[in-house]
Amino acid sequence: MGGPSAGQIGAAASEDAVVRRIAAALEEASGPAPPGEVWIGDDAAVVRSPAGPLVLATDACVAGVHADLALVGLDDLGWKALTATVSDIGAVGARPLHAVVSVCAPPGTDLDRLMAGVAAAAARWGTPVVGGDVTTADQLMVSVAATGTLEGPRPPVLRSGATAGDHLVVTGPLGGSAAGLRVLRRGGAGGPALIEHHRRPLARLAEGVVARDAGATAMMDVSDGLALDLHRLAAASAVGFTLSSVPVATGATEEEALGGGEDYELVIAVDDPDRLAAAFAAARLRPPVVVGRCTGDAAVRTLRGRPLAPLGYQHPVGS
Amino acid sequence: MGGPSAGQIGAAASEDAVVRRIAAALEEASGPAPPGEVWIGDDAAVVRSPAGPLVLATDACVAGVHADLALVGLDDLGWKALTATVSDIGAVGARPLHAVVSVCAPPGTDLDRLMAGVAAAAARWGTPVVGGDVTTADQLMVSVAATGTLEGPRPPVLRSGATAGDHLVVTGPLGGSAAGLRVLRRGGAGGPALIEHHRRPLARLAEGVVARDAGATAMMDVSDGLALDLHRLAAASAVGFTLSSVPVATGATEEEALGGGEDYELVIAVDDPDRLAAAFAAARLRPPVVVGRCTGDAAVRTLRGRPLAPLGYQHPVGS
Repeated sequence: MGGPSAGQIGAAASEDAVVRRIAAALEEASGPAPPGEVWIGDDAAVVRSPAGPLVLATDACVAGVHADLALVGLDDLGWKALTATVSDIGAVGARPLHAVVSVCAPPGTDLDRLMAGVAAAAARWGTPVVGGDVTTADQLMVSVAATGTLEGPRPPVLRSGATAGDHLVVTGPLGGSAAGLRVLRRGGAGGPALIEHHRRPLARLAEGVVARDAGATAMMDVSDGLALDLHRLAAASAVGFTLSSVPVATGATEEEALGGGEDYELVIAVDDPDRLAAAFAAARLRPPVVVGRCTGDAAVRTLRGRPLAPLGYQHPVGS
Repeated sequence: MGGPSAGQIGAAASEDAVVRRIAAALEEASGPAPPGEVWIGDDAAVVRSPAGPLVLATDACVAGVHADLALVGLDDLGWKALTATVSDIGAVGARPLHAVVSVCAPPGTDLDRLMAGVAAAAARWGTPVVGGDVTTADQLMVSVAATGTLEGPRPPVLRSGATAGDHLVVTGPLGGSAAGLRVLRRGGAGGPALIEHHRRPLARLAEGVVARDAGATAMMDVSDGLALDLHRLAAASAVGFTLSSVPVATGATEEEALGGGEDYELVIAVDDPDRLAAAFAAARLRPPVVVGRCTGDAAVRTLRGRPLAPLGYQHPVGS
């Protein structure tokens, strides 16, 4: 989409040329469109519809908000934008299929590097980028929308399905991303592994699919901090929770594990954690970690018996 | 998606509260989710897959680039963002189905007004918003991704299908949006109608579907200016074009009609314009306007016999 609103009517060739270069890089990462499909380059993309339900999610990544470009690369921001969106698809137990990407960028932005990160994530998560939009802005913003589907007859695993007595588990230790950011800012121990957590977070897609098959009652990805996201799950399910412990990534603090966000581990409610653990083992996934239980009293939200505030990141938006 | 990158870890409640208010406004405009579907409020939305192919498009609208908020309302920006995206869906002959919306906004932005425009457009185009993301940014950006589908066996109508001899038609007069912006900036005749063109552009969805049924060989929406977009269609189809005339919106200039953009009329290549006109008449659509023909010599790109430059809007992006 263009527009005369900026008063800029001219014959610049940059937008079309950039789109061609980006399309080539994306095709190199994910391969060409299958016969009969239309990917990047037309007004819209055309792909096969999934046999099962259609799952949709979108997420935006803003320079200076979600990524400090003095500390991480443009490619890391691109990776994170796509990964955060496919993580949302996976967090209902779905498998991602395709993505479209909107880039708003200041003139001079190294879009090749940005899109190299997007392309790497697209290849890693099997989610080709089939369309997009490039536009001018003062601040770099990358918005990704992704499709996915649910295989088999089970419903999606929502935030709202937990009941009293369900066990709460997470798919891995938390706080690595926040600790990686701290190390990038101020140095410290555990550098490379923590920094990698922050620069290139992973979406727990296989875990989400297996958890759905194994009877998870509620699920979400930990994008804004376990404490805040658990409050959200509890509110949606009208339950409380008692946390006994939280697995902390090596080198991270418990505060970072509770409030840091962007780890993209899944938090899962399940009536039988042994069945879940067996399913994870059968799929050669890391063992899920039990962190607590759901209670019938929605006012109970505790860690080791003490009230747990909804620490975490909320954007100061709106009015 | 949140994130600690801005160093802001707290217990603000604004993001969740804003999302609840937005969800209520969107439901009022488009109605509730049908049984079995999941719309706003979870990690991802779940809707029925279309029987036909899945069509995907995305478009972003940036304050100060696509909308001058000193001249138009936040609701107009919201309207335009959703309309531009469904227009892309319609420009391949598809019918839009659902949308997801990413909003990056400075704190204090009147998101209710912004989303009122999005909701009005969603209702107007029968494209409910089923999911989204709200995040902080210094500059307002709204990115919309939409799904759609193609009914019947015909393939999508791409930019690349025109052949020598095809007639070129447009679905209506052009330049209204650019003229409306001019009137907003400097006053002048034809005010209200032109301003409405600029504030609330229309997507030609019915025209796109009928054109596909009537055998259109190539099609695109005029988002960046007829001249530039015709060059794009000609390049994709490896044809040239000879324009005989351009329908100019009342009160607009021919330069605005050629280079203004954001009219969202469709430009269509078709071997038999009478068949297209009959199909439009049967569907009670405005008569399509023949503007020229495609030529076998791709170097020929003329208006009334003189070379036509690719005037129009391209974003100065990349490096």
